[in-house]
Amino acid sequence: MTEAEFLAALRALPLHPGALGLRDDAARLGRLVLTSDTLVEGVHYLASDPPGDVAWKLVATNLSDLAAKGAVPVGVMLNYPLRAASPPAPTAPADWDTAFLAGLAEALTAFAAPILGGDTVSLPPHAPRVITLTALGDAAHAPTRSGAQAGDALWVTGTIGDAGAGLAIAQGQPGAAELLAAYRRPQPQLAAGQALAPQVHAMMDVSDGLLIDAQRMAAASGLAVAIDLAQVPLSDAYRTHAGDTRAARLAAATAGDDYQLLFALPPHRTPAAPATRIGVFAPGEGLTLHDAGTPLPLPAALGYQHGG
Amino acid sequence: MTEAEFLAALRALPLHPGALGLRDDAARLGRLVLTSDTLVEGVHYLASDPPGDVAWKLVATNLSDLAAKGAVPVGVMLNYPLRAASPPAPTAPADWDTAFLAGLAEALTAFAAPILGGDTVSLPPHAPRVITLTALGDAAHAPTRSGAQAGDALWVTGTIGDAGAGLAIAQGQPGAAELLAAYRRPQPQLAAGQALAPQVHAMMDVSDGLLIDAQRMAAASGLAVAIDLAQVPLSDAYRTHAGDTRAARLAAATAGDDYQLLFALPPHRTPAAPATRIGVFAPGEGLTLHDAGTPLPLPAALGYQHGG
Repeated sequence: MTEAEFLAALRALPLHPGALGLRDDAARLGRLVLTSDTLVEGVHYLASDPPGDVAWKLVATNLSDLAAKGAVPVGVMLNYPLRAASPPAPTAPADWDTAFLAGLAEALTAFAAPILGGDTVSLPPHAPRVITLTALGDAAHAPTRSGAQAGDALWVTGTIGDAGAGLAIAQGQPGAAELLAAYRRPQPQLAAGQALAPQVHAMMDVSDGLLIDAQRMAAASGLAVAIDLAQVPLSDAYRTHAGDTRAARLAAATAGDDYQLLFALPPHRTPAAPATRIGVFAPGEGLTLHDAGTPLPLPAALGYQHGG
Repeated sequence: MTEAEFLAALRALPLHPGALGLRDDAARLGRLVLTSDTLVEGVHYLASDPPGDVAWKLVATNLSDLAAKGAVPVGVMLNYPLRAASPPAPTAPADWDTAFLAGLAEALTAFAAPILGGDTVSLPPHAPRVITLTALGDAAHAPTRSGAQAGDALWVTGTIGDAGAGLAIAQGQPGAAELLAAYRRPQPQLAAGQALAPQVHAMMDVSDGLLIDAQRMAAASGLAVAIDLAQVPLSDAYRTHAGDTRAARLAAATAGDDYQLLFALPPHRTPAAPATRIGVFAPGEGLTLHDAGTPLPLPAALGYQHGG
């Protein structure tokens, strides 16, 4: 069964209205915002990745979904598998657990997200770890990704592409520590999300790539969106690493893991948090791309596509 | 790292007050009650178990924790792994997923617990499934397991031991379908829990065994508890299956998976839901057992002990 087939089957089950049809990154329960992410070893992270970074990323990606709702973190539930050591050569999984807990402590402290509960289970020696974190937040106004209106401008916080360059560095390419940190220790934009939530028409985080996520916001809102590649904000570190060519800009706009906030704002409105205007919504459908006015063909892949 | 070591490490991290020190089966957030359970294939269920029963049990065990808080189910979050087929002989995991979804639909409908959200991930072909369900409930009065007072009577709903006998039947022993159903399709005592919550001093569900769970309630309350084995309620089906000897009663009182409610009630008070008085709390500590007044030694195992 593919993920799309499974989701379609889930949608046929009794759904809470707060599930928003399972078409958003978070559920609503009154003022409460709920989101949950599961990481699978070998799928979402490598067994050789630093365990503290795995913990940090698990917390950060969940809190990024809260940030997109303008929510203040309330707490997290952790479902954690304790893997048995594999005889005859024990792989010291306790060291992994200890390092994971250290990264978890850093992230929960950094983002003021205390532990509420969860479950701890035993895992056979050779099974890949499957780790779940569920985050709860409090939000007065929680924007969806589907509220953009024709004429709205498309904005993004921070810079784009740093984490994608960091992934290449993690895989052995030379490059700046700053870019590697953007990949390994992403920063959920909680303060920006809280400031922006009351004024935006739609908001989501950039997790799979700027272009694919912008296309998703436009589709959810029943609109077309045009993005000016020349406006996509790049960091100095990214420019030094990849250059400022059209190819480098396309690579940044289609790389994932940025965890910046993408939002739709009425024209002539100034965002309440630092951000860059990169496009505009219009009646119609689909994503179009241009470079300071020169139309560009869409790249073959707009970002990371979840497999079946 | 053992589960006890991991929990101790978690308790050293920032904890939400509603986590109750990670010493209860559920967390509190205002009126909201949160609980989460993870099932591992080969640990909590067998790959050969009917997938619909696995889904039912996952829902039922979570809702049983809500029942012990007197909570009304609000919704559930599901974190589900879609396993890839294993070449060259595909094991048709889609059939497993489909059957799981059917059991999930039955349970969610039976207990009026709609889906709020969750996450769906890909799993490598040979990895054991790790499935997490998080349940949310609403409760005005949520008893803990630590509030029993000296002189309180210990009561239990329903009958004890049926699921233990059902497990033996699932493993090949002949026996009644009713007992197998008690094991495969446990019924969380939601209505009883809602009726009892305002009047009890302490309440928890019987998941690991009557004796071990009663001992835990006494320990959490800083008390001793004495249980009369002769009063432990057995079903007719259980008596037919196992007899009504002392050994059969001890087997029932130390088997797990009953998901009945165990509670402490002031003496001379009548419970608001059908239940049986099986013991009494007193100052001191520890569990003692007698058979209509004749002291009994404690069995070597009081119930299911979670491994490291």
